Amino acid sequence: MGEEEAVLFANDRFYAAFAGNDFEAMDRLWGPKGVTCIHPGWQALHGRDEVMASWEAILGEGGAPDVKCRVPRVTIHGEIAIVICFEELGSVYLSATNVFTRNGNEWCIIHHHAGPVNVDLEELPKEPDVAFN
Amino acid sequence: MGEEEAVLFANDRFYAAFAGNDFEAMDRLWGPKGVTCIHPGWQALHGRDEVMASWEAILGEGGAPDVKCRVPRVTIHGEIAIVICFEELGSVYLSATNVFTRNGNEWCIIHHHAGPVNVDLEELPKEPDVAFN
Repeated sequence: MGEEEAVLFANDRFYAAFAGNDFEAMDRLWGPKGVTCIHPGWQALHGRDEVMASWEAILGEGGAPDVKCRVPRVTIHGEIAIVICFEELGSVYLSATNVFTRNGNEWCIIHHHAGPVNVDLEELPKEPDVAFN
Repeated sequence: MGEEEAVLFANDRFYAAFAGNDFEAMDRLWGPKGVTCIHPGWQALHGRDEVMASWEAILGEGGAPDVKCRVPRVTIHGEIAIVICFEELGSVYLSATNVFTRNGNEWCIIHHHAGPVNVDLEELPKEPDVAFN
């Protein structure tokens, strides 16, 4: 598996844990320290405790949205990779930045930022690139 | 100057170029390749040509907003640094992710993502941390 594929695999696992309400999987995907997260409209969360508490709140009650990752694109900067993608939540689209760092043979997520985007549906592929439902 | 200060300095220069409508300064701050940018509500821009064309459009006509950086926080991950801050535009606040990479003794920006945030003004310091006006 090439580097880009390995990053996309980590990104896929992130959305699988998110859409699947799987907090334990989400917990394993995040880096051990220095992590940050900006959920849509939320103020930024700093550090593992704050970030994982937010995911526990989002995923803990089985209330995660039916989120699909669309059109992910990877840019690798040495030991760091940035994935930019759309998040499809029903008829709502968000733009997301996901930053990963290399951790041995795997990539773990260290920053997530999602927010609203104006998207022309005709510009997107008909089928999701990554779907978990 | 310590590492965090050097990153904050680069972040300050980014907002100085932004608020100051200084496209040439903005152009010098961005990394040479693999850069990405998500302006509020825009679809993601990939590569130096797309990203710098957007800044030329935003700054070129002297129409940059009166943007101030508030409460920047730095996390360094080896050769990459992530700054999270608020952007104050009049009475509107955005949350921003700015990613920098080390370039010799300086840090250059390789990714910018800004979007809406719900912020309680009482939680922010009364004076901007960084102001250019």
